[in-house]
Amino acid sequence: MSIIEVGCRLEYRVEFETSFIFQVSVLDSKHQKITSESLTSDPQHEIEIGQLGHLGHRIHRVLAQPGWLNLYYSATVSNTPVSIPTNSLGASLHSTLPSTVLEFLNPSRYCESDKLEQFAWDTFGSTPNGHARVQAVADWVYHHLRYSPGSTGPQTTACDVFVCRFGVCRDFAHLAITLCRALGIPARYVAGYAVNLVPQDFHGLVEAYLDGAWYLFDATRLAPVNGFIRIGVGRDAADMSFSTFVGNSMLNHLYVWASDADGKLVPTSKTDNIAVSLG
Amino acid sequence: MSIIEVGCRLEYRVEFETSFIFQVSVLDSKHQKITSESLTSDPQHEIEIGQLGHLGHRIHRVLAQPGWLNLYYSATVSNTPVSIPTNSLGASLHSTLPSTVLEFLNPSRYCESDKLEQFAWDTFGSTPNGHARVQAVADWVYHHLRYSPGSTGPQTTACDVFVCRFGVCRDFAHLAITLCRALGIPARYVAGYAVNLVPQDFHGLVEAYLDGAWYLFDATRLAPVNGFIRIGVGRDAADMSFSTFVGNSMLNHLYVWASDADGKLVPTSKTDNIAVSLG
Amino acid sequence: MSIIEVGCRLEYRVEFETSFIFQVSVLDSKHQKITSESLTSDPQHEIEIGQLGHLGHRIHRVLAQPGWLNLYYSATVSNTPVSIPTNSLGASLHSTLPSTVLEFLNPSRYCESDKLEQFAWDTFGSTPNGHARVQAVADWVYHHLRYSPGSTGPQTTACDVFVCRFGVCRDFAHLAITLCRALGIPARYVAGYAVNLVPQDFHGLVEAYLDGAWYLFDATRLAPVNGFIRIGVGRDAADMSFSTFVGNSMLNHLYVWASDADGKLVPTSKTDNIAVSLG
Amino acid sequence: MSIIEVGCRLEYRVEFETSFIFQVSVLDSKHQKITSESLTSDPQHEIEIGQLGHLGHRIHRVLAQPGWLNLYYSATVSNTPVSIPTNSLGASLHSTLPSTVLEFLNPSRYCESDKLEQFAWDTFGSTPNGHARVQAVADWVYHHLRYSPGSTGPQTTACDVFVCRFGVCRDFAHLAITLCRALGIPARYVAGYAVNLVPQDFHGLVEAYLDGAWYLFDATRLAPVNGFIRIGVGRDAADMSFSTFVGNSMLNHLYVWASDADGKLVPTSKTDNIAVSLG
Repeated sequence: MSIIEVGCRLEYRVEFETSFIFQVSVLDSKHQKITSESLTSDPQHEIEIGQLGHLGHRIHRVLAQPGWLNLYYSATVSNTPVSIPTNSLGASLHSTLPSTVLEFLNPSRYCESDKLEQFAWDTFGSTPNGHARVQAVADWVYHHLRYSPGSTGPQTTACDVFVCRFGVCRDFAHLAITLCRALGIPARYVAGYAVNLVPQDFHGLVEAYLDGAWYLFDATRLAPVNGFIRIGVGRDAADMSFSTFVGNSMLNHLYVWASDADGKLVPTSKTDNIAVSLG
Repeated sequence: MSIIEVGCRLEYRVEFETSFIFQVSVLDSKHQKITSESLTSDPQHEIEIGQLGHLGHRIHRVLAQPGWLNLYYSATVSNTPVSIPTNSLGASLHSTLPSTVLEFLNPSRYCESDKLEQFAWDTFGSTPNGHARVQAVADWVYHHLRYSPGSTGPQTTACDVFVCRFGVCRDFAHLAITLCRALGIPARYVAGYAVNLVPQDFHGLVEAYLDGAWYLFDATRLAPVNGFIRIGVGRDAADMSFSTFVGNSMLNHLYVWASDADGKLVPTSKTDNIAVSLG
Repeated sequence: MSIIEVGCRLEYRVEFETSFIFQVSVLDSKHQKITSESLTSDPQHEIEIGQLGHLGHRIHRVLAQPGWLNLYYSATVSNTPVSIPTNSLGASLHSTLPSTVLEFLNPSRYCESDKLEQFAWDTFGSTPNGHARVQAVADWVYHHLRYSPGSTGPQTTACDVFVCRFGVCRDFAHLAITLCRALGIPARYVAGYAVNLVPQDFHGLVEAYLDGAWYLFDATRLAPVNGFIRIGVGRDAADMSFSTFVGNSMLNHLYVWASDADGKLVPTSKTDNIAVSLG
Repeated sequence: MSIIEVGCRLEYRVEFETSFIFQVSVLDSKHQKITSESLTSDPQHEIEIGQLGHLGHRIHRVLAQPGWLNLYYSATVSNTPVSIPTNSLGASLHSTLPSTVLEFLNPSRYCESDKLEQFAWDTFGSTPNGHARVQAVADWVYHHLRYSPGSTGPQTTACDVFVCRFGVCRDFAHLAITLCRALGIPARYVAGYAVNLVPQDFHGLVEAYLDGAWYLFDATRLAPVNGFIRIGVGRDAADMSFSTFVGNSMLNHLYVWASDADGKLVPTSKTDNIAVSLG
């Protein structure tokens, strides 16, 4: 169990009335308990709460008037991810997948899995199905993409980075998700806060569906997966932007933090043989 | 009220064991009642039923062995779509949209709405929001794309057809959906059967969210929207394939039909001032 | 006749030995006479001169060692572009085009003219062929793209900006070239210096082949075409980069200038009825 | 020396007056001598001859009226390609490349070499520069793409097939050219006739510039490179279509042949250590 402090501050310049949807608050679940939390805005606004996505994560909505909008979020989380030996994790056969996970086999905006089938089967088809195959995908992405902040943009897809071979965390996640789906393994995008991520920012990881549950994979190896605090899940980053809006505003400043009170969490390495689920 | 007969026959050559998911059965809803229905396969298989998507439409799963697989579906449907005057349909403000429809604002595999925002606002920004704006989108798509069977493929996106200016029904639907989302109007893909469609095939339409409900738009004008029988809805065609599978099979033959017992349904024209919902 | 002063300063950080090719010097031609010129580097290097492209413009090659490389270029040009009334300029029929211009009908890296044929003929097919049709293309580009510095990158193509509707001068040129080629009109990219361009930078224009000669078009309307000093021509910006290299270097600073001694040149307006050639 | 018979028959349905440019005739060069040749059309047309491209290959122009157009071409060629041991072929340094070959370093319509630089250097950077590196590129393409007739289309680029991993001869050539250019090695597309190609069609190969001359590479290994008869060279297939036209016509039938009188030519294998040039 770790006690993890996370939070963010967003500052917008609002030109015209803007209807915002924020996805920044921690998902409260069995293994990720929120012990305290605060969400406020300056100027003060009525903040409407909704629920979204496969896990019903919270969204916060603000209708902002011209001027400045500052949003502050902080939470203390008691984190007890489930860890199990990877060698016990086989595949879930396509014919036995529950209907609820099927949407995570379909290609999506940033994960054109229909285009990478030949490559995926040529490259990973002989690796035993189950955890080993997904780990091989994550390892391949780690070894073939260069992490390069600022190198890609909001329209960059998995196939784009498959060609250019560099990107940021969301690109690493998109490519790993795409390869999993091409192999018939349900995979989704998880947005969250990550302890020890340098530089600090929102982080994006992969969850693959194996043996009846969702397991975390981080193809970037930039932060310990057991120090990852989930905001929510979606098909890809298109579903999990920290902010979307209709109106006219501009993000001026973004500040994100995540820290482990005890300082015991260490970066993931490929030698790990523990699978982590936030289930 | 119309009595509509629909159905399809799919014939596959199965090379290796293949796990199929079919999306061909009619959605049973308040305004679209199934009065009789049959789904069988040859050779006989256990056909497992699941539910999927925003409306919980049925999917059928078959685990097929090498050889042939024939799937036969037929249904008789009592169709009573809701028709209301278009001039009573305003927009739903972004800040008031229910959480359940928000996913239909996000870009998706075939609908890269993030790329067409400038064009969409330049072209439709001055049309009154609500039904008029979505109709303007559908009309624009009708007037600027040529319907050309076989001209596009399974990887063709809305932006692709925005450039090349031709496509098939799913391309027309994708482009209209994309433009709606770019304008902040939730829009989704509806797969179904269409009376009087020539040549017969599965059809793909648009549903846009206006004033608290979903309304049908057909940018192809190939068949009467009140003769459209819904299979289900999704973000785009990636969610609503009539068949997806993992394994090794090839579609050999596809036969689709939809007919109106009374023969009274006529093609949509742009002069219609009735909005149709299957809600 | 105008006397125009142009020049640039490029500053590179060279990590490893780098073989540079620069395309910054003014083309010396009948209507664009160089009266004085200087090209130097710091540290001093042997600068090898070559010739390239359809007009045989000069290139300069430098093999630089690790450290800094500064390149200085300046020239005084006596500019006497040919101006003729636009209404006298008809089209050149495809069947009569000289072989030397045929390459400028082919699609190229940034000008995928094979994709925009339907749009081009739908939109410009009824405008009289010749100068009027090319002017209609340039006007269309001007009216449908927003000039937005920094909005696009080195991989952005004409079809990309046709979708997103913003870009910089090279994007405007690429889209106009693409539409001309799609219409069967030879068109090429001209790189050069432009008096009164704000902010100053290298400029990229279009040349279309009409009635036996090449005529300038500037879809951006940012600077007077009779104040444009040509460096050289190519199929698109891929051929006319101010610098390409093999090795490891980074551009640190770029400074470009172009000024008209008399200050008499004024921005192009769409009401002009004079065609300008640098032939 | 081989005596090779080549030819083709093209049949078009001409809807409206169409201006054709054909690139089907054999290049007459030192090592590829035409001993007899015939080009005729039915109905008879004046066939105008032009010259194009880096090697000045011939083009034939026909202005056809509505109805049918049949073009017949046949030639007997005495073929004596230059064969030299591959181990004597080093690289040409970028700083010493003649200006005339520089255009074949630039990205082009189907060869987006600017996008594959990271991959190219990661994968081939440690192979000795020169023939060995280009051979490694051709071998990589052979081993990673599946040859699949009809799988790709006229808009498919090198990056597209890098992702999907299948294609036809022009795709194999485009990908190999793209990787060479990304590595700073000039590379171009050669269209021609190929003895023993099954099924018969026009063929597309790669020429890479090594040690002062152009050498042939066939990443498909479908036909012997010393049985390849060159029509001409260009940046990519956009320059070397067997036919381009402005007007309204449709290719109805295409028949191509190439045969070796002595039947001695055998398919290329990767164990070859002879480099072939048509110089």
